[in-house]
Amino acid sequence: MEEKTVVILGATGSIGTQTVDVISKIGGFRIVGISFGKNVDVANRIVGCFRVPYYCGDGRLEHGLRMSSIEELLDVTKPDVVVCAIPGIEGVKAAFESLNHTKRLALATKETLVCAGPFFKKMVQERGVELIPVDSEHSAILQLMEESVARIILTASGGAVRDVPKDRIRNLGPREVLKHPTWRMGQRITVDSATMVNKLFEVIEAHELFDLPYENIQVAINPSSFVHGVVYLRDGTVKIHAGIPDMRVPIAYALTYPERKYNGVLPDLRDFDLRLLEVEEDRYPVFHYGLKSIVNDLSKRIALNAVDEVVIEAFLNERISFGELVDTIVRVVDNVSFKVENLEDVFQLDLLVRDMARVELERIGGRETK
Amino acid sequence: MEEKTVVILGATGSIGTQTVDVISKIGGFRIVGISFGKNVDVANRIVGCFRVPYYCGDGRLEHGLRMSSIEELLDVTKPDVVVCAIPGIEGVKAAFESLNHTKRLALATKETLVCAGPFFKKMVQERGVELIPVDSEHSAILQLMEESVARIILTASGGAVRDVPKDRIRNLGPREVLKHPTWRMGQRITVDSATMVNKLFEVIEAHELFDLPYENIQVAINPSSFVHGVVYLRDGTVKIHAGIPDMRVPIAYALTYPERKYNGVLPDLRDFDLRLLEVEEDRYPVFHYGLKSIVNDLSKRIALNAVDEVVIEAFLNERISFGELVDTIVRVVDNVSFKVENLEDVFQLDLLVRDMARVELERIGGRETK
Repeated sequence: MEEKTVVILGATGSIGTQTVDVISKIGGFRIVGISFGKNVDVANRIVGCFRVPYYCGDGRLEHGLRMSSIEELLDVTKPDVVVCAIPGIEGVKAAFESLNHTKRLALATKETLVCAGPFFKKMVQERGVELIPVDSEHSAILQLMEESVARIILTASGGAVRDVPKDRIRNLGPREVLKHPTWRMGQRITVDSATMVNKLFEVIEAHELFDLPYENIQVAINPSSFVHGVVYLRDGTVKIHAGIPDMRVPIAYALTYPERKYNGVLPDLRDFDLRLLEVEEDRYPVFHYGLKSIVNDLSKRIALNAVDEVVIEAFLNERISFGELVDTIVRVVDNVSFKVENLEDVFQLDLLVRDMARVELERIGGRETK
Repeated sequence: MEEKTVVILGATGSIGTQTVDVISKIGGFRIVGISFGKNVDVANRIVGCFRVPYYCGDGRLEHGLRMSSIEELLDVTKPDVVVCAIPGIEGVKAAFESLNHTKRLALATKETLVCAGPFFKKMVQERGVELIPVDSEHSAILQLMEESVARIILTASGGAVRDVPKDRIRNLGPREVLKHPTWRMGQRITVDSATMVNKLFEVIEAHELFDLPYENIQVAINPSSFVHGVVYLRDGTVKIHAGIPDMRVPIAYALTYPERKYNGVLPDLRDFDLRLLEVEEDRYPVFHYGLKSIVNDLSKRIALNAVDEVVIEAFLNERISFGELVDTIVRVVDNVSFKVENLEDVFQLDLLVRDMARVELERIGGRETK
């Protein structure tokens, strides 16, 4: 069997390095290009170990040819698969560019569907690209999906605030909030797990990916992250996708879909934690606010992503408390409502809201340092 | 869309009447023939209501043409689908005959695969018939099955003895044992749930249907029968099939596979009981004996089915206790070990073991009546 070529965008992050690991294990794939941000050390290791011919990033590596942009990297390599794992609005641009140069996009950058879902889906269709989600939750739903779907449940771990007494949540600092109970991930997504903004993004992502109305997307907490997704079919059948949390499983699936090549750990009956609990409104206020007021308004979706990135930075720098983070998100998003007509509007609104968020942070007078 | 024709063998039993109900609800199917045993009243209602043209059974009905045998019924109707729901060894003969006259066999008679699995599968393949299981457990596994399957779990309710103190189990009478906690079914299968002989049959059935080695088939108790089956894939994925217990769902699936037409009840999160518990050896001794000593020996499988039918009758007539039922099964099966070379051998061994079982019952001197 011929090897498939892969470009990994955001190769030095959590998803990126796990993608490298998966590829080294399953065989049949060859990394022909990577992009990275500032992490030259890890990029050097990847390019060295896997003889990656092309790269693109902030710095010069010991091996490989440096491309001036992701566009150029993709154009030169024309890979069978692009794994897009660049976080934030930068990742959105990269995801759009990928559509011009590959047959399959394994998408980890959830901001793409959150901020530009309708435009992105249109272009996916026009280009005839296979769009496969990398998120464990959406991979699970994809694996269970049938035509007669009636409803789905996305699961959440509940993040670091799940078991904290409610009256203490607003005063939590970054050290506590970064203690994710089940997944080891980047800092932003770990904070997003605590606010459940991450799950709100995933609800939107599921709505876009599977063409499901929001009223047919439910969210429940599975404390161990053992349950990844649930699909209800119209005949009354409930299908549940579970497994020991390991991002390499959905990453491998996105590469090899519809086959499976990865050798995972088979859980024992004692590992099964199938509890599905309610998402309490007074523990996750932003999540519930978002379900009511954000999901149907593309401009508010873009705003949520933008303000979230800004306030999380302030929170991680201990300029604001967890409570202030939550309040600022709601206050800024509440003030946004625009008609978003094209991709240009998306990026402009993103910049605008970042400014609004910074103004708001100054207004509440965040501490400069701890 | 053209209607598909269906013959229901064993139309007046629990599966048979539910099949009639399903067909009346989903549309697209027409009952062209039924067989029944002695239940003329129900057969009359079915043939009358659904204008069934042909039937076969112990008695003359008000409408329809009476056929002299199941063979003739099938030959005259040549249906698109046969639903075979005749229990016991009679059903095995009917299942074999069906293969000559239909394209799809929806099989509820689990004795077919238990007593004659290898011969049956060979003929299914030769005739090119689609074999679809009706059992909720096997339907669940079929719905979750993938090439990369590593292991499955069949679930059991644990039957009426599940919560009885262990020292009281042997003295239970038919009234107590017939109280199945979750499914409403025929008497024999309800007793078989309490001994878990039914689950032993299903392990064998799964082995035959899905070509799985026995060591890859696990059994666990789900007290509410909400979980119908679990499939482990080699990448570590666990897929679970669940739903409110309702045999009409798998019956409909067997008719409409791979599509779904039935409108079932969508369970609420509060209905979810996903506990999977161990099958205790001292509560279900026949089940564990069978896993060790029966499943790999076709003659013992035939023997188990034969002795089980005989001793259950004695148990229901209060000639023997539940403890004696269990002991007699093991004692008779232990003495059987033959080479079974063809279908003829199956039926002969069946008769022989029934005699052995009756002799054994006389030996232990069962009470004549209560």
